[in-house]
Amino acid sequence: MTYASTRTVHDLYPTRGSEEVLTGRVDPVVWSEPGTPGPMWAHELESFERDGFLSVDELVVGAQDLPRTPHDARIGGEGREHLADPVDLEHGAHFAGVRLHDGPLVGQRRRVTQQPVHLVPVDVHLVDVHQSRINVKPGFGASGFYWHSDFETWHAEDGLPHMRTVSVSIALTPNHPTNGGLMIMPGSHRSFLGCAGATPKDNYKKSLQMQDAGTPSDAALTKFASACGIKLFTGKAGSATWFDCNAMHGSGDNITPFPRSNVFLVFNSVENRPSPPFAAPVRRPRYIASQDFTPVG
Amino acid sequence: MTYASTRTVHDLYPTRGSEEVLTGRVDPVVWSEPGTPGPMWAHELESFERDGFLSVDELVVGAQDLPRTPHDARIGGEGREHLADPVDLEHGAHFAGVRLHDGPLVGQRRRVTQQPVHLVPVDVHLVDVHQSRINVKPGFGASGFYWHSDFETWHAEDGLPHMRTVSVSIALTPNHPTNGGLMIMPGSHRSFLGCAGATPKDNYKKSLQMQDAGTPSDAALTKFASACGIKLFTGKAGSATWFDCNAMHGSGDNITPFPRSNVFLVFNSVENRPSPPFAAPVRRPRYIASQDFTPVG
Repeated sequence: MTYASTRTVHDLYPTRGSEEVLTGRVDPVVWSEPGTPGPMWAHELESFERDGFLSVDELVVGAQDLPRTPHDARIGGEGREHLADPVDLEHGAHFAGVRLHDGPLVGQRRRVTQQPVHLVPVDVHLVDVHQSRINVKPGFGASGFYWHSDFETWHAEDGLPHMRTVSVSIALTPNHPTNGGLMIMPGSHRSFLGCAGATPKDNYKKSLQMQDAGTPSDAALTKFASACGIKLFTGKAGSATWFDCNAMHGSGDNITPFPRSNVFLVFNSVENRPSPPFAAPVRRPRYIASQDFTPVG
Repeated sequence: MTYASTRTVHDLYPTRGSEEVLTGRVDPVVWSEPGTPGPMWAHELESFERDGFLSVDELVVGAQDLPRTPHDARIGGEGREHLADPVDLEHGAHFAGVRLHDGPLVGQRRRVTQQPVHLVPVDVHLVDVHQSRINVKPGFGASGFYWHSDFETWHAEDGLPHMRTVSVSIALTPNHPTNGGLMIMPGSHRSFLGCAGATPKDNYKKSLQMQDAGTPSDAALTKFASACGIKLFTGKAGSATWFDCNAMHGSGDNITPFPRSNVFLVFNSVENRPSPPFAAPVRRPRYIASQDFTPVG
């Protein structure tokens, strides 16, 4: 594995300095040329480009076979995210079995999708899995995740130079209006909010539970939400939302007895190889940020 | 002021014992005889009787004049409930100005409704104000309120013998699907969940911020939610929800920048005079539980 270069990469998106800075997005949202063949309709790509997300009613067939009871969802503690080691991840077009790195085997080698996963927002077949995780909110007061742009972290701490990465959040349990579903500010992916404050060493150990460095100010969130509004995503098990790496998103807590578990898979273009971190003293471990750049497709 | 009697009142709804106990509701939901004239339609009363709530799109005209900016809503701290001293409350059919007991004057003597407030779920003109408060969730992570039945507390700690009390939650700010609005389990008001655990002295001092005594178990909430489902209430400023005193309700947190403030007014039948507390060592102070039984109407 080599970095894209050694520190000659220009930092397009400054962050974690002394002040919060707003920077316009330089990168395209959809990287393929208009008219490039792919599994998505043109109007779907246009919608993704405009809003920064695209919802699919039934991406995964058979999601009900994955862990979704309160008991299962409690594995490893409440309200935490569980990272899957990419080594243990059967990623790709047809399988997305996930092993919890601190828990028992869950869904390993189990068929969770019988359709090809559509990766058109990034280049088809030219992606690797940057990160994968299960977000478990078992209910009865499980906490949410505060507002953030994933790219802000991946740029600062993992060295991804460009916004050429897309996530998909797949519901393993019904996402009701009441159990802490994903919220996105539509259109927020077009502006990059560089956050104030330096990155502490080993920040990743707690940033997966509660945001610290990389947290937007109240004033910035007010500006973003006033301009963009907030969309809450709901859907049955197997529904999914693709969203851009720079979309401002978060989720509330879950006091209902209905667990809310989603698998997140993050696909990065193989042409978007990481530089050294742009704003962190150390790179995060590879079970958080993959250094395996083998294309998925 | 005298109690309804001195401890000869039968305890219809045991709670705060060594175990959680489910008791069927003995009291009616609508106390008036069928066909009694009043400002609500028969189908509205039937709906209230069945579900334990009734929503009104625009109960209050002029709610936008009340404090609703993040700055205003921050008065007195985040995510706390502010109790209004009934002495300072201009209650009744046309005024509902409220003074925060630990903050500046807010909305005092301001006309918040130009329509009579409809109290038909209890006896018209035969109610007093048992409690009034503003629930302030300024956003950016303000916490919610865990599941509870108000009557459980009012019975245990204030000595209300019967379920003859109704609340109205009036939105001072828009209640979006995303900013921690009221959630009710429809139909839950027909069963009384007696909670396990004795009431500590001065419980009220922290129970208004976080539930402690009077908290349902996970198992009971799962049973209630599976049978009843959960309804989330949304609406513009001025919209309102009437709900029965025994409805199981709660609310999630609010990480959005959109503040969510609601006024709660609680009307108790003058025929439902409090006994000594059924399950607490001391009565709560009168700014929480009124001892003024003057009819409103």
